[in-house]
Amino acid sequence: MVSLAQSDVMNFLNEIASEYPEAISLAAGRPTERLFDRLSPQRLAEALGEYQSSSAKGPLRIDDLLQYGRTAGVIPDLIAAQLRTDQMVAARPNELLVTSGCQEALMLCLASICGEPNDILLLPNPTYVGAVGAAQACQVRTWPLEPGDLPEAIEKAAVQIGKAGRVPKALYLIPDFDNPTGNVISEAKRREIIELCKRHRILVLEDSAYSLFNFDGQSILPMAAMDDAGCVIHLSTYSKTICPGVRVGAATLPETLFGSRDDQLSLWKALVQRKSYITVNTSSICQAIVGGLLLDQKCSLLNWIDPALRVYRTNRDVMLKTIERTFAPYAGVVGWNRPAGGFFLALDLPFDFDVDAVVECATEYGVIVMPMAFFAFDDSQSRSVRLSFSAVTPDQISTAVEAFGRYVATRISRRAVA
Amino acid sequence: MVSLAQSDVMNFLNEIASEYPEAISLAAGRPTERLFDRLSPQRLAEALGEYQSSSAKGPLRIDDLLQYGRTAGVIPDLIAAQLRTDQMVAARPNELLVTSGCQEALMLCLASICGEPNDILLLPNPTYVGAVGAAQACQVRTWPLEPGDLPEAIEKAAVQIGKAGRVPKALYLIPDFDNPTGNVISEAKRREIIELCKRHRILVLEDSAYSLFNFDGQSILPMAAMDDAGCVIHLSTYSKTICPGVRVGAATLPETLFGSRDDQLSLWKALVQRKSYITVNTSSICQAIVGGLLLDQKCSLLNWIDPALRVYRTNRDVMLKTIERTFAPYAGVVGWNRPAGGFFLALDLPFDFDVDAVVECATEYGVIVMPMAFFAFDDSQSRSVRLSFSAVTPDQISTAVEAFGRYVATRISRRAVA
Repeated sequence: MVSLAQSDVMNFLNEIASEYPEAISLAAGRPTERLFDRLSPQRLAEALGEYQSSSAKGPLRIDDLLQYGRTAGVIPDLIAAQLRTDQMVAARPNELLVTSGCQEALMLCLASICGEPNDILLLPNPTYVGAVGAAQACQVRTWPLEPGDLPEAIEKAAVQIGKAGRVPKALYLIPDFDNPTGNVISEAKRREIIELCKRHRILVLEDSAYSLFNFDGQSILPMAAMDDAGCVIHLSTYSKTICPGVRVGAATLPETLFGSRDDQLSLWKALVQRKSYITVNTSSICQAIVGGLLLDQKCSLLNWIDPALRVYRTNRDVMLKTIERTFAPYAGVVGWNRPAGGFFLALDLPFDFDVDAVVECATEYGVIVMPMAFFAFDDSQSRSVRLSFSAVTPDQISTAVEAFGRYVATRISRRAVA
Repeated sequence: MVSLAQSDVMNFLNEIASEYPEAISLAAGRPTERLFDRLSPQRLAEALGEYQSSSAKGPLRIDDLLQYGRTAGVIPDLIAAQLRTDQMVAARPNELLVTSGCQEALMLCLASICGEPNDILLLPNPTYVGAVGAAQACQVRTWPLEPGDLPEAIEKAAVQIGKAGRVPKALYLIPDFDNPTGNVISEAKRREIIELCKRHRILVLEDSAYSLFNFDGQSILPMAAMDDAGCVIHLSTYSKTICPGVRVGAATLPETLFGSRDDQLSLWKALVQRKSYITVNTSSICQAIVGGLLLDQKCSLLNWIDPALRVYRTNRDVMLKTIERTFAPYAGVVGWNRPAGGFFLALDLPFDFDVDAVVECATEYGVIVMPMAFFAFDDSQSRSVRLSFSAVTPDQISTAVEAFGRYVATRISRRAVA
């Protein structure tokens, strides 16, 4: 199988759509632009002005926003309030680091937690490529978890890592509507994982990028909101709820690390110091835009994101219906999940799907899909694809899925002939 | 002598002013807010709109600016044009990486160039703490250059490093109006350093943060503009010329690395990939604000910065005059330089100046100055201070320098008594 170096995947993700502009892309994990019509330059200026005039500390001078700012951020109070309201995370402003997107939060945590050569980061397989890339950039060793039951895989990995003389220090997870699989970790499993991580002293890096985009029924509490052991760091972003262009995210620490307030404080200091040497501080103009919108929305984004949530739910429904119709002849051969939220759906094929297949689909069938192998540590995912339904229209989804269906039919018949 | 860990200096720099709000701070290296009156929220929105409507590729959708963007940046053409016009650097847009401030550019270069454990970064002593911090954050070994003639010190260091079985890979310099000393590297020395670096295959990281703030006479060409060997990477920032709040900087590569186009391309790829794992991309909102201002200014910031330049020149003159008057009784005991531009002046004292002295000055004399020791690798700078004249008024400068003069007089008389 032709495979890209994992490190090139992020560029591939960014560039393939522009290489095949006429193909419909189910590849990009971009948010819909449905929210963006409320973010004109004029509206961004108003948000800035609103933050300036309604700051908790009294009106700010615009000069303060244009200068160098506090390393840990200028709007931690507003972000903490939003996380408390929308996600039930007991965020304390003094222990919430505002970052240049969630990617910086993740990178800072990895570098600060896994500082010794023997420290290991555990990851699901497949997982978000940016987590693997951040680990590579920080020279942190990674350990892919075995497929199947997640708590069992974590327990097994912790024991094996210990036997190898190494230390399992951190575990990266997207419990809600995972990228790339779209799966959710159940409440019971979340609690089991916290227990395990407490026992093995593993810090969970909980990436909540998609959590608010829940289509069906009751949300499950974030792990950070269940954490009574001091083992979950909550990573959040405004890239999906406001827009990626603001580049504002956050890392929220638990009150202690495994019960130790000193350990928590020393991690906090390490994060802030490292941040100062990487980006000095997050753009205070961008923070003020986010701050103004949060003030305007009374620190809850649930109403704000509702138009996008409805887009994603409709798109998920159209994708599922088209898949059911298209792949009905292949029952038992082609399989898929039913994501309860987020941006992504996973589809299993009866053949390998690699870079050549991406190019064939794009050029011959006018559809771009993402090999699940791009998100994997090994060839276990070579027969799956990730289908993204976030940044396309229902018509594009049905056209693209049907076209992909014709490609799959051709591949299956080729195999039958061969 | 009491000394802070070098890693705490950046926080100390940020926080001391707020700890002693009634003291006049000659400590912070912040730009004057004189430029900021042209950056109201409304004006920022106009700049965004101007960039949108006048992009070289035709009008952009605001949606494009709010989405994830090209990893290497969306305004490299405009930044390259400004560097060509204002600094004579032959910047090519395809080899100019837009970063979240110059600090990220520096950090990405260090991590990508000094990737092996034996790779060494050479630095002046004293130097910008953010360079030392970035090296620490990337686990890059540092080598402080000996005082005296810079080319001689570089040659000596290169030989010693080679003998120790290590590799001198990079050299960090601020040739124009250095932070912390205010000094300038002469044109002849710049050419000598390029020759030396070509011979030893050392990449110069030329930080041009202060270059446009030249008070007296003709500017010296940046090293990147003299570089015929492919050994100078030019680092630039809009923090001083527009405002720090935009967090936009850039790394501009030479056309080859030591004559090799392949080596240059592979460094470019490494920088872009690493950037994607650290901050994904620089806020496209911030880039569009900078882009709109650059378009408005026809890609030269010389007119734009003129009010600030005049503030700094006046402040430097007031500081020099007050120093001359205040320290006249201590001729031959207290010494200082005459910076030809930038933000900083270096003053030498006949006694150690440490953290306790900072606190005594702030509380008893109402003035905050920065020990030069904070920027040093050893105790060679313990009898110097850095005086910043960028973010204060002429009245504040004369009051603060006179107050500092009283402190110095007291210290000298204490010593005479002891």
